[in-house]
Parts: sequence; C-alpha cells; structure tokens
Amino acid sequence: MKKEETGKGNFVYLRIAGIIEQQIVDNTLRTGDKLPSLRTICSEYGVSQNTALSAYYHLENKMLIETRPQSGYYVKYSRARIPQVPDTSSPSGIANFGISELLVSKVYDNLGEGGHLPLALATPADELLPIAKLNKGLLLATRALRGSGVAYDKAEGNERLRRQIARWAFNMECSLSHHDIITTSGCLNALSYCLMSVTEKGDTVAMESPVSFGMLQLAEALGLKVLELPTHPESGVDLNAFEGALKNKKVKASLLISNFNNPLGSCMPDENKKAAVQLAEKYNVPLIENDISGDVYFGPNRPRTCKTYDQSGIVLWCGSVSKTLAPGYRVGWVAPGRFKENVLRMKLYHSISGTSITQETIGSFLETGRYESHLRKLRHTLHGNMLRYSGAIADYFPECTKASRPRGGSVLWVELPPNIDTVDLYEKALARNISFAPGKIFTLQDQYQSCMRLNYGLLWNVQTEAQLKALGELAKRN
Amino acid sequence: MKKEETGKGNFVYLRIAGIIEQQIVDNTLRTGDKLPSLRTICSEYGVSQNTALSAYYHLENKMLIETRPQSGYYVKYSRARIPQVPDTSSPSGIANFGISELLVSKVYDNLGEGGHLPLALATPADELLPIAKLNKGLLLATRALRGSGVAYDKAEGNERLRRQIARWAFNMECSLSHHDIITTSGCLNALSYCLMSVTEKGDTVAMESPVSFGMLQLAEALGLKVLELPTHPESGVDLNAFEGALKNKKVKASLLISNFNNPLGSCMPDENKKAAVQLAEKYNVPLIENDISGDVYFGPNRPRTCKTYDQSGIVLWCGSVSKTLAPGYRVGWVAPGRFKENVLRMKLYHSISGTSITQETIGSFLETGRYESHLRKLRHTLHGNMLRYSGAIADYFPECTKASRPRGGSVLWVELPPNIDTVDLYEKALARNISFAPGKIFTLQDQYQSCMRLNYGLLWNVQTEAQLKALGELAKRN
Repeated sequence: MKKEETGKGNFVYLRIAGIIEQQIVDNTLRTGDKLPSLRTICSEYGVSQNTALSAYYHLENKMLIETRPQSGYYVKYSRARIPQVPDTSSPSGIANFGISELLVSKVYDNLGEGGHLPLALATPADELLPIAKLNKGLLLATRALRGSGVAYDKAEGNERLRRQIARWAFNMECSLSHHDIITTSGCLNALSYCLMSVTEKGDTVAMESPVSFGMLQLAEALGLKVLELPTHPESGVDLNAFEGALKNKKVKASLLISNFNNPLGSCMPDENKKAAVQLAEKYNVPLIENDISGDVYFGPNRPRTCKTYDQSGIVLWCGSVSKTLAPGYRVGWVAPGRFKENVLRMKLYHSISGTSITQETIGSFLETGRYESHLRKLRHTLHGNMLRYSGAIADYFPECTKASRPRGGSVLWVELPPNIDTVDLYEKALARNISFAPGKIFTLQDQYQSCMRLNYGLLWNVQTEAQLKALGELAKRN
Repeated sequence: MKKEETGKGNFVYLRIAGIIEQQIVDNTLRTGDKLPSLRTICSEYGVSQNTALSAYYHLENKMLIETRPQSGYYVKYSRARIPQVPDTSSPSGIANFGISELLVSKVYDNLGEGGHLPLALATPADELLPIAKLNKGLLLATRALRGSGVAYDKAEGNERLRRQIARWAFNMECSLSHHDIITTSGCLNALSYCLMSVTEKGDTVAMESPVSFGMLQLAEALGLKVLELPTHPESGVDLNAFEGALKNKKVKASLLISNFNNPLGSCMPDENKKAAVQLAEKYNVPLIENDISGDVYFGPNRPRTCKTYDQSGIVLWCGSVSKTLAPGYRVGWVAPGRFKENVLRMKLYHSISGTSITQETIGSFLETGRYESHLRKLRHTLHGNMLRYSGAIADYFPECTKASRPRGGSVLWVELPPNIDTVDLYEKALARNISFAPGKIFTLQDQYQSCMRLNYGLLWNVQTEAQLKALGELAKRN
C-alpha cells in the first residue's frame, strides 16, 4: 500500500512527477519555465508516453503546471506566488481570558445545517467522502454483526476495527496490537477520556498555540488550566518551551497535535517527535497525541507519530475517521499506553460502549483497499486545494498577508496585517454569506486578532475562488 | 395509541382479560378455580366468540390460566405461589467501601460476547428486538439524511428523534417540545452529562439503594460521594429519607430511577413522584430522573414521571431505547429543564455530537406505529416472563426466599435466606455456566450479601427454567 506513495514502487509516473515537483519547490524551475516535452520524458526515463502523460496530469491536478495549446507544458506555480509563513507564535503563558463562547457559537451554530459556510469548518465536504461505499458497508455490517448491531459492543470496542487501526499504525512505523486500542465516539471524545484519566480539576495542561478551540473548551469544561506554548506554523511546538513547561512540574499532561495541527497545519519533524517523547518520559508527564489528520499527508509518506517513539507507554495516541471518512459516524480511538485501564474505565462509566454498527462499517472499510484508494484521492484533492488557496491569498488578500503552508490536513492559518481585526471582518463577511473561523477562538489569551483559519477541505470551484476573492477585498477595504 | 392499552378503547378482549386478571391478583379467583365458559363470556359481555377466545388466550400467554382438554379454562396462578416481597432496604448512609470493581468485571467481562450468561444482564435478548425493521430503518436513514449521515449532527441531536421523544412524552402526561431535548449516547451518557453539569468533585448525590452499579461507578469516576437511601421494592425511594437528605443541604443532586428501578423493579407511585419533585424544588436540589425502562410497563398505562410534575425545570429527565429497541445503537436523551445550556455544552465539549445514522433510524421508528406495536409485544412477553420467574423462584429456591414483583422493566431482585452468600453462590453457579448479578455490586456499603438480580428479559424456554431450577438447588445445598 505504501509503495505506491513512496514512488519507489509500481507507480513510475509518481516518481517522475515527484522529481519535477521538487525542482519547482526548490525554485530550480520557475513560473513560466517550459518543461521537457513528453517525448523527452519518455526517452530520458525509458517510459511509455502514457506514463509521461500521467506524470504531467498529476502535476496539472496539483496546480503546479499548465498546458498551453500547441506549445507544451509550463510551470504555473512558483515560490514567489506563495504567501510568507507566519512566525512562531508567542503566547504569554497561562491566562484567564477564557474562550469566547459567544463567538464560537456564533460561528458554529449552523454546524450540520448543510455547510453553507464551509470556510469556517475543519471537516472535508460531503462530496469528498465515499458515501456510496460507506452505505454499502453499513448493509454488510448489519449482516456481519450479532443481532445486526442492536446488541452492546464490548467496552474496548469493535474488534475488527481495533485490528485494522493496529494494522494501519504500521504506516507510521508504530507497533500496536488491537489489545492496545480502545474505540471512542470520535477523537474529541478520546481526548476527553484521556484528560479525565490523567488530570484532575485545577491541573494545568500544555498545548500548542494557536490550537483547536474544541480542545480549549474541553479543558475548561474539566476545570483544567491551559498553558499555551509557542508554536511554529511548519515545525509545530517549540521544544524549548515544551521542556520548560514540563520541567517546572506544574504541567500534569501535554496535549499535542503532532501532525497537521488545527488551525496551523504544522507538522512536527520526526526528530522533534522523538525529542518530545523523551522529554515526556524524562519528566514523567503523559503526552496526549491528537493525530486526527495524520492520514491526510501531502508528502510521499505517512508522517510518524509521537507514539512511534514511545517506549514506556507515556503517549496516549488518539485518532478518528472524522477528517477522512465520516464525522457523523463518531468513530475514533485511542491507544492509551500505560493508562489503558483508566481510559477503558472512563469509557465504560460514561457511556458503556460505542455504537456497534458504525464501528463495524469503518472496520470493514479499513480492511479492504478502499480506504487507501479513497485517501489517495482525498490527499490529492486537498493538496491541490491548499495550493489554490495559497495562490488566492497571494492574489486577493492585503499585501504582507502571511499564511501557513500545511503539508497535510484541511485547514490553514492566515495572518493579516496587524491593523485588521478578524472579529470585525467576520461580521462584514457574514453579511455576504462568507464565513471563516476568527483567530481569537484558538486561544485563551488576548491574541491572534488579525488571524483566521480557513478550511480548504471542499470542492474547488468558481464559488470558492469568488468567496476568497471577496474576503480578500473586504480585508483590503479595512 | 394509548387507548389500546387502557382497555377503554378498541380492544374489548383486553378489558375482559384485565377484569379476570384483577380477580386473580386479588385472590378472588384462586389456583384451580374454573373460569366461565367462552359462551358465558360472550353473553355476559355481548361479544363474539373470537373476542372471548382472545381474552383467554391473552391470560394463557401471561401464565395466569390454563386450558384443560374437554373441560375448560382454569386459574393457574395464585398469590400463594408468588414469593414474598423483600422489606424496604436500610442502607446506613454514606460509606467508603466502594464498589467491588473486580466482581463487576468478573460478571460483565463477557458483555457483548453472545449472551451465554443472560441471567446476569439487564437488557432484552436480541430475539425480543425488532431487528429486521431496524435494518430497514437504517437503509431509509441513509436516504433521508444529508450525506447519508456522514456529516456531523447538530449538537442538540437529530431533530426528527427529538420531536418524537417529545411526542412520546405525552404518554406520561408530560408536555415537552423538541427544543427541550438533547440526544445522548445512551442513558448512562445522559446521566454523565447531567452529573457533570450540576455537581463537582467531592459533592454528594442521593440515590436509591440498591441501585444499578453503572450509576455508582459513574459517581465514583466523577469523584462524587453517594448517599444511599432506603427503598421499597414496590414503591421505590423512602420519601422521608429523601427529604432528610435534601434538608441537610449536603446533597448536591439526587438521582432516581422513578419507574422500574434497576435492580429492584420498584415504581414510585404518582403521588410520590409529585412529592419528590416538590421536595427537590423546596430545597432547590436538581433531581436527575433515570426513566430508561418507563415504556416497559405491565399495567394499563405508561407510568408518569417526575418530569410530569416539574414546574420549575429542576428535573433532568433521562431515557434511551437501550431497554426496548437497540442498546448497541447508543441512542439516549435528556430533557434537562433549566440546566439545558450546561448539559448541551457538556455534550458538545466531550463528543461534539452523536452518531447521525442511528439517531435518524430510531427517530423514524418512533414516528410510525412500529414502536407501539413492538412495545405491546415486548411488554406482554416480559410480563409473562416475570410471572414465570416468580413461579420458578417459589418452586425451586430455598424456603423463605423473597423476590420483588416488578410492574415493568426486565429485572427482579431476589433475597435469599441470610445464611446464603451470593458471591460464593456466583462462583458455584458459574462452574455450571449459570450467571447472575450478585447483590453486593448494587451498593457501596457492606450489604445485600444474600441478594441477587435476575434478568427476565429473555426468551422463556426449557433452558431458562432449567437454569433457574439448578440455581435454586445450588442455593438450597448451601
């Protein structure tokens, strides 16, 4: 399965496309440069015309190159057209501002209403999900399960699903068995059981900043304080700050989105993950890892996880299919390491078990090759979208607007010039039926006033581009 | 819908059967008494032979009467064959014994494994559930829902389901709208959100005693203390003790199973419910009502709820379809009264939303007449089973064994002679592949050593009777 993606396997066209992509990213090939003809590719690489065409088609889809009739292929994208990446965040530590509940509910009251404000969300549009195949899976699940799924599931969760999660964990070079895994009602529910297992009211938890408001709200609901850590839009949490937090012994747990942080899109390099786990072990502070978007990577390989480097069971690795298959199924999981008994008890005591039928459906979906082939398409679409968004931001947003450059996931972080307040801008945009997630809801402190999170997990079309253009113009008029 | 059940409506045969049943219960008709002939019934009530036959068939099914060939109908059941009801429980107050986790997991580790130890459970057997109709409902739900249910549901929950719950609440003379209701992942999950909304770690919650171990475990997981209240096997919680608990202001909330308490089967009379709500209002202590089995009544009418008498929003009424349709769907709900905002936030923060597809399936099931016709069959079967269990206990268990006489639900409470320790008995029974729930797991105190809970929510057949007989003989040998 992985071979196809690494380019070292069967798909020669991907290897060729990868080489050209790298040259574009490195600026060796610049916007407008003419690319080798198909015939040249064929003779240089010893491949068929079809393979050469596939490579160029792949790059075209990614918006990296374009065809000009009767002329050939040209580089469309170059670094110059991509907005600058924001700096590392600099939160000031623990603060008592609290999250703006009102603002969050204003932005999300229409959740589930039909997605007419998709830029604000952080889940892929229905059109990107394999709905027909999932429906077929539901039918098969009613046949496979005892009593068609009316009976209680085991407390640990559906065994088929747990086996598949363990099998998939191989892709991130993580050795797990189904005994290590407990299913949950989505990823946030997994984080909830983890936090309830390793913290008590009044404790402090360290998180990246900015960070998904759902995690901030959960912490607040549990009476926890949040220590917000400086985070870089590409490499994730600042390790010095992380160690500082653990060292002073005031942090009872850390909660990191290791791959494609929401809202930044940052991804911790492997060595940082390893170092973070070593620090967690050194200071004996549980590390809860939110890896909900890890399967949606744009690079050649599934990024590793902190769990990959976990020797002692100090990492509680959480995931779900809410960013890839079906948020409404509420299927998530956790591999809680040495905290398994506690987490299992939390699940049992708060909800007995999970929904049998949706777990079985996802389990069988993962068992076949359908998940991998769906993911391949999804990654391809989202990567293309991300590049299109970057282009649109460069084209339409105020000068000096910065934007993160996610290598996976479905959201990016935009930093507008400091004179623009995105809460004001949100009101103006809403009047035109455009929504986004204002920066203020991703922190408990008084910061990120000029920032916003944009969702690129939707179909790119004329409307999407028009919305981004209108949003940019509104911002410029400020 | 309700008319059919009250006997005042279309079904004359039920009215006739009801009159005879009452005479049997009152001991006006005694075991072995001959009943009026079909012809007499026809002329006395002015009904057809078919109607008269239906009435007798109904009573036969309930094990109350029997046919003797060439002779007629005779009373089979009489009060004499029914074991005595245990006395009101007398827990000593708050205790620190804690629940025997080990014993609970020993009894329940096989939950979901295929029900080979059904006497220990408290859910109806798969055979009693409308599986084929639910499967059809799942298919319809994939067609009715946006994106076939892959998308997030609203935080409040599926609207069709909430409307139906509000409509059904009419049966207990409770006026609710769908705006009053929040769906949850089963009833225990509803209780969890309620407790998290109205209590904090260290608070005390008043409950009936004995009480479902799930509720005790949930309270322990939340760091709450439990005040166990004296409870009568027929009329439920002792109101004087209840008032005492509320008066001393040390109780932050109460949690009552108003209808068909698990494990006792007790049902608070309407006037007691009303009085309990008045006390809750007087002392301003939220009353969380677990009404999970309220629809499984054996009498003519759906019993009312505490919520029926709630004027001020102090009652948080919780329910689910886990005892009637599909425990594995994890569909439950709460009408949290004045605590709605808090409870909704808990749901949102801990799990975002519920599973879309199972909620829609249950919503549409409740919308048609299928739920009522299923319930009618289920109640009939369970009532018959309860009577058969009573008979078997009288026939096979040690003399002086007492047993509760539930007027609904699917469990009853057995009190063996005091020299019998049901934890020892459990071990011996297990060796013969018989299981039950030992009394000790229904309290945090050192009591109920001679008690057990039995599940009659299964198909009555030769094996069931043989298991009860074997269990009785093991107990006698003690």
